[in-house]
Amino acid sequence: MANKGGLRAADPLIQEVSKVVPGFDQLACEFAFEKILSRPGLGIKQREIATLAALTALGAETELRLHVAVALNVGLSKQEIVEVLLQQVVYSGFPRAINALLVAKEVFEERGL
Amino acid sequence: MANKGGLRAADPLIQEVSKVVPGFDQLACEFAFEKILSRPGLGIKQREIATLAALTALGAETELRLHVAVALNVGLSKQEIVEVLLQQVVYSGFPRAINALLVAKEVFEERGL
Amino acid sequence: MANKGGLRAADPLIQEVSKVVPGFDQLACEFAFEKILSRPGLGIKQREIATLAALTALGAETELRLHVAVALNVGLSKQEIVEVLLQQVVYSGFPRAINALLVAKEVFEERGL
Amino acid sequence: MANKGGLRAADPLIQEVSKVVPGFDQLACEFAFEKILSRPGLGIKQREIATLAALTALGAETELRLHVAVALNVGLSKQEIVEVLLQQVVYSGFPRAINALLVAKEVFEERGL
Amino acid sequence: MANKGGLRAADPLIQEVSKVVPGFDQLACEFAFEKILSRPGLGIKQREIATLAALTALGAETELRLHVAVALNVGLSKQEIVEVLLQQVVYSGFPRAINALLVAKEVFEERGL
Amino acid sequence: MANKGGLRAADPLIQEVSKVVPGFDQLACEFAFEKILSRPGLGIKQREIATLAALTALGAETELRLHVAVALNVGLSKQEIVEVLLQQVVYSGFPRAINALLVAKEVFEERGL
Repeated sequence: MANKGGLRAADPLIQEVSKVVPGFDQLACEFAFEKILSRPGLGIKQREIATLAALTALGAETELRLHVAVALNVGLSKQEIVEVLLQQVVYSGFPRAINALLVAKEVFEERGL
Repeated sequence: MANKGGLRAADPLIQEVSKVVPGFDQLACEFAFEKILSRPGLGIKQREIATLAALTALGAETELRLHVAVALNVGLSKQEIVEVLLQQVVYSGFPRAINALLVAKEVFEERGL
Repeated sequence: MANKGGLRAADPLIQEVSKVVPGFDQLACEFAFEKILSRPGLGIKQREIATLAALTALGAETELRLHVAVALNVGLSKQEIVEVLLQQVVYSGFPRAINALLVAKEVFEERGL
Repeated sequence: MANKGGLRAADPLIQEVSKVVPGFDQLACEFAFEKILSRPGLGIKQREIATLAALTALGAETELRLHVAVALNVGLSKQEIVEVLLQQVVYSGFPRAINALLVAKEVFEERGL
Repeated sequence: MANKGGLRAADPLIQEVSKVVPGFDQLACEFAFEKILSRPGLGIKQREIATLAALTALGAETELRLHVAVALNVGLSKQEIVEVLLQQVVYSGFPRAINALLVAKEVFEERGL
Repeated sequence: MANKGGLRAADPLIQEVSKVVPGFDQLACEFAFEKILSRPGLGIKQREIATLAALTALGAETELRLHVAVALNVGLSKQEIVEVLLQQVVYSGFPRAINALLVAKEVFEERGL
């Protein structure tokens, strides 16, 4: 439930896509959230760490922005988020990590953190 | 310390590179391990989750193989590792997730898990 | 000929590059259009489907924007284009597919579709 | 139905993953096949063209190998498949296109085409 | 020394990241500049050529913008830079090369070249 | 001329593709070599540096193997090649750089360097 609430930060983007793909919100919710992200065996904080790392590696900044907010919502601290993104200098290189940290910085500032 | 021991699973690859780049092991150790991975603010299990997710997204299977072993060494369960990789069907797509799960399956079999 | 006309939607971008690489328009036209895209064995609609899918996978949104317009010009329907991009949730993951669908949505709106 | 039969070429890979993720075959089938690939608005041949192009762009050769077989099963000709992959010299560059064509060549040879 | 001066063009981005990762400027300087980029065996112009090519391949446009400026600072000509980026039509495909050339065009215009 | 000779190391791969795409060798030669790589404004050694860096960033190991040989043929030293690949720890991350260095190590060993 807390999980579901945290993930709701991604809603605006999914609602926007639903205007061009009717039912996309339900499809995304059923697959991503119900079939995958709510599986047992990994906590929601751990799942957000994995998501932040993958989005940094992919250079997917629009989704990363939403997931930095999701990460804060599910209880990851600003420092934990920063460390996940910074760590990607090792695996994805400085450009991807720098871009991700700049995105996170903006979200933190919007929230007054 | 436990950390350092766990990461030692990556040693063979780094030793191999050191044959063509003398001192690469020290360079990798100082930067990746001392400057980044040992920073406070994120536990070693959480860092391995981030690494597994990023390597899956990058399709970096040689390093992923080593880090599935590292992940087991630092105390992540087989189930936790599987969930991190499987979750990437959402963010990186089925091909990257499938490739990663096949790599993990091999490591689990080698260890009799 | 219809082919050539449809592809002309990509012209502004190529003209812009030609200002810094004199002759780029001719180079791009001769190679991409004459040597590859006009080969027999695959229709122009099918070629645009392949292009849309690849640009989504690559996260190449500037070119994708132009090719959504090209796709409409060569006779693909709005629904066909949406299905090509949406399908990439399976192969390239949700972030790439979502970004592509948002780009297509903008082009459709500009054309009043 | 013909569709479902064609896609069955991907089964061995998915069955292998199911050994480490129990139920993966059902999950992949329900999401990829039932929710996405069987949507109306795009024919199965067109969908395979999109898949081949995306897998080439992603450098996902294991899945590409299976999908060259799927493409033949659903009725794409050898020439059509070659043209889809070759076209990626323009969008994904020569290395990705060359790798994909070499994979396709092997599948064609295995089938005596 | 001239090297260090040329690389200073990347400073604003690194300073921005340092606001969210205190000490990032020192970390980046020590690793990227002192441990890697100042190694003997490859001149600074050659290193910038390699960097421009890699950033084009990665689609890392924010960093590319800075490195076009760095490249000019260390003595690469406008024509040399253009040729490095244009060459990527072969290896990374037209979209990545076009995006990179448009970034370079903007930097050249800002400098009145 | 020396240029053309050096590039001939890529011939076996291109000949293999030509079996499935008749005329691919001529197409690749005309576009990649005549239209792009032989343009004035950048020397062949500099072009190979750019190619090695991009192939490392792309994780395109089959082509990288050939281009390490091309690089040696056109006069780059073993040390220069190693430095180009190693530098990618900064921009493309350790996994891509490590994979590239292991490929180069094999080519050097085959040549007794």
